Amino acid sequence: MSFAKKRRIHFSDCDPAGIVFYPQYFVLFNDLVEEWLDGILEDGFADWVVRRRFGTPTVHLEADFGAVSRMGDDVLLALDTCRVGRRSFELALRCTGPDSQLRMFARQTIVTISLETYRAIPIPTELRIALHQMLPSKPQSEDGLP
Amino acid sequence: MSFAKKRRIHFSDCDPAGIVFYPQYFVLFNDLVEEWLDGILEDGFADWVVRRRFGTPTVHLEADFGAVSRMGDDVLLALDTCRVGRRSFELALRCTGPDSQLRMFARQTIVTISLETYRAIPIPTELRIALHQMLPSKPQSEDGLP
Amino acid sequence: MSFAKKRRIHFSDCDPAGIVFYPQYFVLFNDLVEEWLDGILEDGFADWVVRRRFGTPTVHLEADFGAVSRMGDDVLLALDTCRVGRRSFELALRCTGPDSQLRMFARQTIVTISLETYRAIPIPTELRIALHQMLPSKPQSEDGLP
Amino acid sequence: MSFAKKRRIHFSDCDPAGIVFYPQYFVLFNDLVEEWLDGILEDGFADWVVRRRFGTPTVHLEADFGAVSRMGDDVLLALDTCRVGRRSFELALRCTGPDSQLRMFARQTIVTISLETYRAIPIPTELRIALHQMLPSKPQSEDGLP
Repeated sequence: MSFAKKRRIHFSDCDPAGIVFYPQYFVLFNDLVEEWLDGILEDGFADWVVRRRFGTPTVHLEADFGAVSRMGDDVLLALDTCRVGRRSFELALRCTGPDSQLRMFARQTIVTISLETYRAIPIPTELRIALHQMLPSKPQSEDGLP
Repeated sequence: MSFAKKRRIHFSDCDPAGIVFYPQYFVLFNDLVEEWLDGILEDGFADWVVRRRFGTPTVHLEADFGAVSRMGDDVLLALDTCRVGRRSFELALRCTGPDSQLRMFARQTIVTISLETYRAIPIPTELRIALHQMLPSKPQSEDGLP
Repeated sequence: MSFAKKRRIHFSDCDPAGIVFYPQYFVLFNDLVEEWLDGILEDGFADWVVRRRFGTPTVHLEADFGAVSRMGDDVLLALDTCRVGRRSFELALRCTGPDSQLRMFARQTIVTISLETYRAIPIPTELRIALHQMLPSKPQSEDGLP
Repeated sequence: MSFAKKRRIHFSDCDPAGIVFYPQYFVLFNDLVEEWLDGILEDGFADWVVRRRFGTPTVHLEADFGAVSRMGDDVLLALDTCRVGRRSFELALRCTGPDSQLRMFARQTIVTISLETYRAIPIPTELRIALHQMLPSKPQSEDGLP
């Protein structure tokens, strides 16, 4: 039940070494998370950010880069939920090459906040339900926030 | 006979004013031009850049920004050939909103170069043919290069 | 009376062709314009954007790219005022290499707007004064806006 | 013996939530690492990349984001060596606010490679010496590479 998308690596994604500039991986995954949230939230992600002042900043990130991606490569970008807390959730992000080789893997903890106060708020219900449905096994209830 | 693509405006495309950061329009169009060339060049654009050392730098650009694009907007990005010279060609680029309103319009002159010498080279034949087929009317032969 | 700054071209500014990715020039100049406005506006540019909801979108841009810039190059980025209207102004932007060769030249028309309404507003007084002081000759009064 | 630099957060660093777009932190730190290497390597970093085909890809990254940075903030970006292996080294990266509050902290493992083969190579001597000099205590010799 991953959310996944094929993406051709662009010229604009790459650096003078001819490979994906590593911060650009996080832009690609940010776009993927946004597209996924766009499908989950009834009025779309933009409406939540602009009108409801809902924010999803990253508080923790771990990434391993195993093999390079080059311009023109068709990669698969995928995301899975791996933990759902009260005011935060954790995603697993994967980039695989055309040969299904895992090129990059990351775990990202996102907090749900109000953009008015920049403070954590409980995960909105429609998002919480979608996150739980995506969990690999039984839902977990502990919150990763201190 | 435009080459066009729908694109939802991402969070990562926008600036603190909540609208597309204007240099990002040129990234979006660069990706569009690349996708278009990818379909024209038999071995794909990446192969031309990496293996044949073929480059397509911009030498002139004019752009008008008439209306803003916001996160979540579904825009249409389109390109047309408007002039084909010997070692350069000119594209017309358009971004239109969901209501077909023209939001941004640009003309871009691209030179074909060797990445070994950084000097202009004649437009490769398979690209020249495709450019001419896309011209609105009869092909022009003058070169815009000094 | 240009506003100018030296800048070393970074790895992150460059593309797989090993030269400055052309949209990145506009990011560099956007940063330069911001730094210049930061010195002009008493409370700083960020305060104007965030608290006063003041915006400076680009409505017209013309650029010529004459010579490439490579990673490690020390370039000079400079800006001058060339026209001051009632609700818009025009800047001349230049990137010169270590040998004073002009590598890139642009003219950019910026409109002053309210970020609440996204409508043009008269140029704020302290900015207007600074713009006029930077004009090469006598101030012009016509507005370039339709 | 950190390598550190003050940096004002730009408009172009920020997202529609008005804070630094998190992938942009890695661009800022990539620029910092480059500037640091530029001072260490006798002919400059660009020469090493372009002429000697020397690359420094990231293989592991861990980051914690504790407090947001906003446009106009003057932050301090700092790096320290925390491990030196045979073909890889680990850096500690910190972003602190004007009040010395730690806003973002990361550990980054970089491998030294040949851009011809994309394979790991021993850390070049002049870089190894500089890395060891920056180590907080006695040099370590184990290599973190598998």
